Amino acid sequence: MKSFDINIDCGESYGIWKMGADEELMPIVSTANLACGFHAGDPITMVRTIELAKANGVSVGAHPGLPDVVGFGRRRIDVSPDETYAIFCYQIGALQALLRTRGMALHHVKSHGAYYAILNEDRAQAEAVIQAVIDTCDAPMLYYPAPMRTHLLTQVALDRGVDVVQEIYFDLPYDRHGNLVLERAQNKGADLAETRRRLADYLDSGELVAVTGEHIDMSEARSICLHGDGANAPALARVLREVLVGRDYTLEAVTPPDPGHSQAAE
Amino acid sequence: MKSFDINIDCGESYGIWKMGADEELMPIVSTANLACGFHAGDPITMVRTIELAKANGVSVGAHPGLPDVVGFGRRRIDVSPDETYAIFCYQIGALQALLRTRGMALHHVKSHGAYYAILNEDRAQAEAVIQAVIDTCDAPMLYYPAPMRTHLLTQVALDRGVDVVQEIYFDLPYDRHGNLVLERAQNKGADLAETRRRLADYLDSGELVAVTGEHIDMSEARSICLHGDGANAPALARVLREVLVGRDYTLEAVTPPDPGHSQAAE
Amino acid sequence: MKSFDINIDCGESYGIWKMGADEELMPIVSTANLACGFHAGDPITMVRTIELAKANGVSVGAHPGLPDVVGFGRRRIDVSPDETYAIFCYQIGALQALLRTRGMALHHVKSHGAYYAILNEDRAQAEAVIQAVIDTCDAPMLYYPAPMRTHLLTQVALDRGVDVVQEIYFDLPYDRHGNLVLERAQNKGADLAETRRRLADYLDSGELVAVTGEHIDMSEARSICLHGDGANAPALARVLREVLVGRDYTLEAVTPPDPGHSQAAE
Amino acid sequence: MKSFDINIDCGESYGIWKMGADEELMPIVSTANLACGFHAGDPITMVRTIELAKANGVSVGAHPGLPDVVGFGRRRIDVSPDETYAIFCYQIGALQALLRTRGMALHHVKSHGAYYAILNEDRAQAEAVIQAVIDTCDAPMLYYPAPMRTHLLTQVALDRGVDVVQEIYFDLPYDRHGNLVLERAQNKGADLAETRRRLADYLDSGELVAVTGEHIDMSEARSICLHGDGANAPALARVLREVLVGRDYTLEAVTPPDPGHSQAAE
Repeated sequence: MKSFDINIDCGESYGIWKMGADEELMPIVSTANLACGFHAGDPITMVRTIELAKANGVSVGAHPGLPDVVGFGRRRIDVSPDETYAIFCYQIGALQALLRTRGMALHHVKSHGAYYAILNEDRAQAEAVIQAVIDTCDAPMLYYPAPMRTHLLTQVALDRGVDVVQEIYFDLPYDRHGNLVLERAQNKGADLAETRRRLADYLDSGELVAVTGEHIDMSEARSICLHGDGANAPALARVLREVLVGRDYTLEAVTPPDPGHSQAAE
Repeated sequence: MKSFDINIDCGESYGIWKMGADEELMPIVSTANLACGFHAGDPITMVRTIELAKANGVSVGAHPGLPDVVGFGRRRIDVSPDETYAIFCYQIGALQALLRTRGMALHHVKSHGAYYAILNEDRAQAEAVIQAVIDTCDAPMLYYPAPMRTHLLTQVALDRGVDVVQEIYFDLPYDRHGNLVLERAQNKGADLAETRRRLADYLDSGELVAVTGEHIDMSEARSICLHGDGANAPALARVLREVLVGRDYTLEAVTPPDPGHSQAAE
Repeated sequence: MKSFDINIDCGESYGIWKMGADEELMPIVSTANLACGFHAGDPITMVRTIELAKANGVSVGAHPGLPDVVGFGRRRIDVSPDETYAIFCYQIGALQALLRTRGMALHHVKSHGAYYAILNEDRAQAEAVIQAVIDTCDAPMLYYPAPMRTHLLTQVALDRGVDVVQEIYFDLPYDRHGNLVLERAQNKGADLAETRRRLADYLDSGELVAVTGEHIDMSEARSICLHGDGANAPALARVLREVLVGRDYTLEAVTPPDPGHSQAAE
Repeated sequence: MKSFDINIDCGESYGIWKMGADEELMPIVSTANLACGFHAGDPITMVRTIELAKANGVSVGAHPGLPDVVGFGRRRIDVSPDETYAIFCYQIGALQALLRTRGMALHHVKSHGAYYAILNEDRAQAEAVIQAVIDTCDAPMLYYPAPMRTHLLTQVALDRGVDVVQEIYFDLPYDRHGNLVLERAQNKGADLAETRRRLADYLDSGELVAVTGEHIDMSEARSICLHGDGANAPALARVLREVLVGRDYTLEAVTPPDPGHSQAAE
């Protein structure tokens, strides 16, 4: 039985300000990365989003970000590795407790916003994050864009025995090195027919095609990441689900590693 | 073998701003209530304070407060019971994860600042806090000023089977109803000789004397709370410790209840 | 030549989170109350909203709130009168400087959210706000719901010689005492035909009809306040404007008092 | 009649957390750079610090910083030039209003913390700050470390006609390029006898000696900057004042430029 995962960022509202189509997307996806209060997601928003995920059988991961609500965690801040370690542990723990209140366990960790660049450039920062994941999670698991080989954070994760779930994106283009091209405005929304075709091709070949035509091996990916703030995110999610189901895939969260397996001894 | 506990509020620095004599007090006390980031205590301060507690064999409880750094959690905010539940769970969980990274477990929960009044006046708020403690703690335990019978929060705790550790204060006077008189500025510091005498009398009688002369039964208290920001807090702590040790008391944290005993089923 | 004013709350976005139909409403209204950063409105949002107001010839007032972004300034906080004075001056000054960069002057001050209740119940708080307005504004002017006689803040304003522009609301009902009934959810949107009729009646009679049928004298009102987050706020604004223009009213901001007239000497 | 200025950073407390020896220093210095709320200095702290400055005849400048209380504005944040412009105007305006309430006018602007590096490396950021100063100040004046020629921000200031008051430091060493050596911990405090000698030498020669022995021309400096958080800041300030007074200098704030002179037309 084949299975695939679709994950979304969620819980990115803040106080009375709403963001994302969480209500529409949760019934379609299998995994959700939940903002933990530092760049979005106040505690009451976290509780409501957890309840929404639970009602839809969606597994919840932590989506920790830099401490910058106004900048939505997208402005790089020169935090030290010790600060990164502490703010990841803090946010992961806050979510773990809220999940526990609803009978759920943390599924994975996925870093947010400007941390993508920071963790890809600075080894001490990447080590701080992986140590935080190891030190706080029963079953350490990281979500990160495929292909994994070129990224510092995933190298550190593998060195430390942390399971990495590689993601593919259908709402962003790739360059020939397999890097996501972030310059294109996300909010235009993806072309649904093209997405349907690209996913079908991917399922056949395990490859995606870069904007410059090269074929990129993405065969190790286990999850599709979908931007919940895209203009037509729910429609896109439904298309992705349809294609997967039509090819006899079960949509479900990636199975976590055996608890304790990769966890560092105290 | 007799034992008693001394607890302090700690970790109340914020960024570069320092508060409290944590380094001096930790070697003297047995339990510490650690600020969790909402009224004081950024994540890196929390890590450092946990390490300090661990190095001194001090048990650590959560000291959650209102989301108000400028007001140090002392300005009453009209949060809803749902918000109180979420911000207690959030802060408790953040501390639990940071404790876990240092091989420690959460010892207890003690509310901070303006929550003292809120939880003593509004039953829905008190129920929200007790539910948060039950839902997030392996061994739910609450610290609260003795005498317990007059307080709403402790009544709710007992109704729900949550263990309450009653505290006595030697750096604040009591009125004839057994309520702490907060009007006196804490920072003057306590008279050491008077404190020595009052503690000795208390150990003999189980009673404290109110400012108006009445004797108040405090025989069920199990911990002395000491304000770490008092002018002579370390000297006062040493006096309290000396008296206790001189009377053959062991200074140690109150033993938590059997995990799972009072915990609500999901 | 008759004139009337329509004012809206605006600039209530925060970082990437959007709120309010500012772009649609600015061409229709004559005055805007701009959030100043404490409950909404980061600095860059303020600049953009000022530019939008300027482009549409809209006068800008300050809309200071409690320091509580997550609660949108709607949760009562026990700030002292000294704190209220300081946070009003601070927010007013921040807006004045940003207005100055675009060649504009502050038009008025209107308090936000939970301050409505605080300033109506606590004379020291009301005096703090009026003192802040007098101490910081060239031409002190306050916007406040009509009828004025029953409200503490407006009494203090009049005692101190601060001009008060009384507002009427067509998207909220009134009780028989002339108080706005806030319980009704604003977001349903107002009935346009009913609004048209109510405004026409008001212009004829100077009265509004309470939900219980009583006629309330609102003849001293000089501005209509419109909630920009109402479901059909732009449509409602257009209706109000149409009725006013159809009755030969000019839509324009209330003329500020002569600078220096009511200003307290240092 | 010769005069010189001594300036300090002040108002860097936050809520209940205290920082700096403002009370001791204000009677000694002539100018103070006041934190404006983004990295330190809540509104009530600002009011109190302004009152303290006024009572001591000290001129007050704005000391705007990055929006980062936990990091005290010392962690670099990738804000855009537009954001820098808005957050400088916002903070300057907030201070201007608070100064106005006490009958004072803003004296100058001096950037804080990580902005020192940002404004020295990125021309668009430097232009944003100078534009903010021009757009918000009656008499635009910038404080900045001498020697001026090597710094981007001061070049932009001079290009735009903004007066720059060059500062010298006696509690930090200089390298041979005339740059301050920030690595040395400030809190050790300066050697008073050495400071006395260095200032006397400087007044004779207009030069300071670098840690590597080179003589650096500082003859254009008009103010001494003193770190208020240094261990012996008040003693150091008294020494500086004594030497200046002993050489017949009047201690006074630099006279602001003629209002309107360098101010850009709208």
